[in-house]
Amino acid sequence: MRDSRRITATYYIESDIDPEQAAAQLAGEQSSGTFISVPQESDRIRERHGAEVLHVKRLGEGAPSLPSRSRPERITRAEVTIEFPMENMGPDLATTLTSVAGNLFELSHLFACRLESLTLPEEYIAAHAGPAFGMVGTRELLGGAQDVLVGTIVKPNVGLDENEFRSVVRDLARASIDFIKDDELMTDPAYLPLETRVRIATEEILAAEQITGHPTMYAFNITGDIAGLERRHNLVVEAGGRCVMLTIPVMGLPALEYLRGFAQVPIHGHRGGLAASMRHPGLGIAYGVWQQLARLAGADHVHVSGLGSKFYERDDEVTSNIRSLLTPLGNTLLPAPALSSGQNVFTPELTWKALPTTDLLMLAGGGIAAHPDGPGAGVRSLRQSWAAAVANFPIRDSARESAARGDRALEHAVRAFEVKN
Amino acid sequence: MRDSRRITATYYIESDIDPEQAAAQLAGEQSSGTFISVPQESDRIRERHGAEVLHVKRLGEGAPSLPSRSRPERITRAEVTIEFPMENMGPDLATTLTSVAGNLFELSHLFACRLESLTLPEEYIAAHAGPAFGMVGTRELLGGAQDVLVGTIVKPNVGLDENEFRSVVRDLARASIDFIKDDELMTDPAYLPLETRVRIATEEILAAEQITGHPTMYAFNITGDIAGLERRHNLVVEAGGRCVMLTIPVMGLPALEYLRGFAQVPIHGHRGGLAASMRHPGLGIAYGVWQQLARLAGADHVHVSGLGSKFYERDDEVTSNIRSLLTPLGNTLLPAPALSSGQNVFTPELTWKALPTTDLLMLAGGGIAAHPDGPGAGVRSLRQSWAAAVANFPIRDSARESAARGDRALEHAVRAFEVKN
Repeated sequence: MRDSRRITATYYIESDIDPEQAAAQLAGEQSSGTFISVPQESDRIRERHGAEVLHVKRLGEGAPSLPSRSRPERITRAEVTIEFPMENMGPDLATTLTSVAGNLFELSHLFACRLESLTLPEEYIAAHAGPAFGMVGTRELLGGAQDVLVGTIVKPNVGLDENEFRSVVRDLARASIDFIKDDELMTDPAYLPLETRVRIATEEILAAEQITGHPTMYAFNITGDIAGLERRHNLVVEAGGRCVMLTIPVMGLPALEYLRGFAQVPIHGHRGGLAASMRHPGLGIAYGVWQQLARLAGADHVHVSGLGSKFYERDDEVTSNIRSLLTPLGNTLLPAPALSSGQNVFTPELTWKALPTTDLLMLAGGGIAAHPDGPGAGVRSLRQSWAAAVANFPIRDSARESAARGDRALEHAVRAFEVKN
Repeated sequence: MRDSRRITATYYIESDIDPEQAAAQLAGEQSSGTFISVPQESDRIRERHGAEVLHVKRLGEGAPSLPSRSRPERITRAEVTIEFPMENMGPDLATTLTSVAGNLFELSHLFACRLESLTLPEEYIAAHAGPAFGMVGTRELLGGAQDVLVGTIVKPNVGLDENEFRSVVRDLARASIDFIKDDELMTDPAYLPLETRVRIATEEILAAEQITGHPTMYAFNITGDIAGLERRHNLVVEAGGRCVMLTIPVMGLPALEYLRGFAQVPIHGHRGGLAASMRHPGLGIAYGVWQQLARLAGADHVHVSGLGSKFYERDDEVTSNIRSLLTPLGNTLLPAPALSSGQNVFTPELTWKALPTTDLLMLAGGGIAAHPDGPGAGVRSLRQSWAAAVANFPIRDSARESAARGDRALEHAVRAFEVKN
């Protein structure tokens, strides 16, 4: 009675033994096998629970990428595809991670091991709620705007006192910004507790909306101890807050899914710490795999770095990661890809040319706070830059046109940020 | 009013800019700074909340270890020490990780970034409960034995049905083993639910104790969704179970600390998945850092690979990791280092010579299940091997002596496992 529901995982590996043999060892270790065959590993168990090697594609030889006990001079590189019976893990995320991305990174015959892609059966996906709001629900909460959502991070990351915080939020909310978030370093410090931030930010946002008519969503960072997670979420919701933020890699995917179980507002999913298990091309988990699991666990907004960013990934990699976020995953709602790091008026054109979509949440930190004419001009300049990008109209021409109409926000942004670009 | 409580982190970095400058950038990004200085980053905030670069030690030049946007040909290697005001994160583990091991792995001027060590102030440590049982409490629950604790993993990892599972546990418990654990792949599958395992294992262990007089601790793997974590823990405790197991890296340190908040039995901390952020020497977090946080969060037993193992770390690295676990951390109880992977009668001598301590929990999978005379002989052979190692008596001489007394367990184990060693 072999389970027909299979989870398929593709790995890049390096090994000093034949790749077929290395793949078989990996499959065995991560399912019914052990290093030494034991009497109880019956044919029944192997047949029903054993992971199976589907493909092995040799990619050449070379020096090993990772340290090891044996330190061989040469290894063989390969791409291997392994099929796991879903019965072994059920739809549980933690067990799945343990199976497809657990001890296998330690195996001494592997000198690289990276989970490159993961295909989940329909039943697996259907067992998870996925985003409760996604891009579409976020737009609805923001009055239905169909453009790229423009947001920012409260800066400096840490250290603002109550009055300074109020003033930053006031300026941003009155600038008709769509979205504000806490920095990932800002959680619930004694000098500016979450409760205080929630009260102040909500007051300022509602007051600004009376003036501008434009709703603003604030993502309050409720990252912290799990015992207090629901309390912190409730504190946000009861005060009228519209979004909570979680730094997924430091909390764990199970914590995200736990939050999803009671969350009444969108979950803004930060990726701080993810690069520790993602940046080396021969180790850990590719972004495309991680985002699938973060979406199943319920992230409504998913951080993805940004084109032209100050982070390590190249623009083509960021583009491919954004594309992965916009690829359907069963019947789950599509999340909002959150672009961040180094975002300013020059990045919309880059982004649009790479991937023509406006289903994005763009977070510009310095790009708004450091605009010479203040955050109102910062927000306006970004919206104008996006409008120009979508119309395939050069940003400098657009800046000249707005300036001719008396609005110098884009012109000044171009001047302020062009040094960097 | 600068906070005198400081968290000190030492990193290995590679950068295409001057290491002093790279360190300052890292310190800024992870505290009060942002890429572009913003008006609100006042002197007050920088003085009170800014992280500070304490030391920069250049280590030479070379090619970059990690991929990046800029792909420089040469980088400078350095060890840098940075001090963070504890006020920025409080004693919260998730916020601490975000600060000392968050976005910094992504920074495009860093071509390696690894958190090598972390020194926490007394107040930080004191804010965490640490292990409730540790090595000493585990020994008490096992009747006070002072030798190395001998344990094993139920094999095959997955797939046993109820009757097969009962038979495996029965044989092990009647072999007077100290400790049995679920494989990390075994959580709560429909074909052999946790509840069933708890019932069967507890029955068999209590029945065996009537015969042998020797208590056995079973670590039930309660890794899974967080909403069900307390229920699964309670299910173990109410049935008379003596230990729960959590795969820490896939669950997250906050989940471990959450479990610690209500756990009534020792927490066996598995490290499945950890190597994804640990194996590359230029990326992620060193074991010594991770184990500190896992101990603060409450792990009573902490997996540490094993000497002579089938995992990648060299024996000297494993020794240093065991030593880190046995180093005091404030007033917290010392955990039991859990040796696993490839453990058999040949590894006690290796281990004792590297680090003469019996404060260890040795998990031998094949080393017990694959003993030609069955698990009883497997357990006996391991105890005899440890006794010989501690007495500095060669294992083969010890095997001959026992054989002369009519006990061939060690002799047969030596023969069965020497091929591998």
